[in-house]
Amino acid sequence: MAKILIMSADGFEDLELFYPLHRLREEGYEVIVASLKRGVITGKHGYTVEAQLAFDEVNPEEYVGLVLPGGRGPERVRLSPHAVRIVKHFFERNKPVAAICHGPQVLISARVVSGRRLTSWYGVKDDVMVAGGIWKDRSVVVDGNLVTSRHPGDLADWMREYIRLLKGVS
Amino acid sequence: MAKILIMSADGFEDLELFYPLHRLREEGYEVIVASLKRGVITGKHGYTVEAQLAFDEVNPEEYVGLVLPGGRGPERVRLSPHAVRIVKHFFERNKPVAAICHGPQVLISARVVSGRRLTSWYGVKDDVMVAGGIWKDRSVVVDGNLVTSRHPGDLADWMREYIRLLKGVS
Repeated sequence: MAKILIMSADGFEDLELFYPLHRLREEGYEVIVASLKRGVITGKHGYTVEAQLAFDEVNPEEYVGLVLPGGRGPERVRLSPHAVRIVKHFFERNKPVAAICHGPQVLISARVVSGRRLTSWYGVKDDVMVAGGIWKDRSVVVDGNLVTSRHPGDLADWMREYIRLLKGVS
Repeated sequence: MAKILIMSADGFEDLELFYPLHRLREEGYEVIVASLKRGVITGKHGYTVEAQLAFDEVNPEEYVGLVLPGGRGPERVRLSPHAVRIVKHFFERNKPVAAICHGPQVLISARVVSGRRLTSWYGVKDDVMVAGGIWKDRSVVVDGNLVTSRHPGDLADWMREYIRLLKGVS
């Protein structure tokens, strides 16, 4: 079964983690959650999920895709050099990456935003643009291997496009 | 665009409402949320959603499917004779119904459980059995037009089977 990696941390936006988690399982993928360390992480609305791996235990070669939920998790994720290295791997190999809301903060830290069309939560739009990104106010933006959305209201469009991309390559 | 009705109320299990809401939109359905009255309803984890219709304004003829999320919403929903009438309609017409967790409480009130294979949250298993249901401890149980699951961990299996059923008839 092809594997997909979700990278997040405490404060994640609950729907933005659980929608892709269940949706990609529904599609037959094995979905692994990784965080700063192994163990339970808690969303901003109180849902919990088990991080099965710490970032430094992740071998990104094993995964066909990467998902970056939003909320307050990404500001923690981006501080890990291991997380940044993992993001770079997916871009170097042109493997499908989905990011939503504050998720693109991790993309900025990995220096993969420049020249890319993408969207994000409104509050970090300026950071995306300063990093060289071409920010669009659309429910979903697909640019090469990258599929981005703004907020939980975009979940359906986000996963529709991400799964289309995954199916094209895996 | 074919329409699907979600019936819920304050105290709904957030993921059990939002997963099918976005998932069915992703599939191209128009999804309408109805409750005891129009306006915002709030989930047990604090997410909110707008009920666009009150139960007494719903014409069930317009919908190809019905979804009953769980949480503490169903104990409110089942008190509405309009909600009960709507459930009966879907069973009389053999249209696909998805219920999860405490959602089957509404099925009990509509007297449509007897002789049916189904599952539910463990805490209401005995009510299902006393009502004549044949309760199964499985992630998803499909019996004719009815697709049931136990809890949010079953969301992927629940919607995979429900969408398969919908696609077969609409």
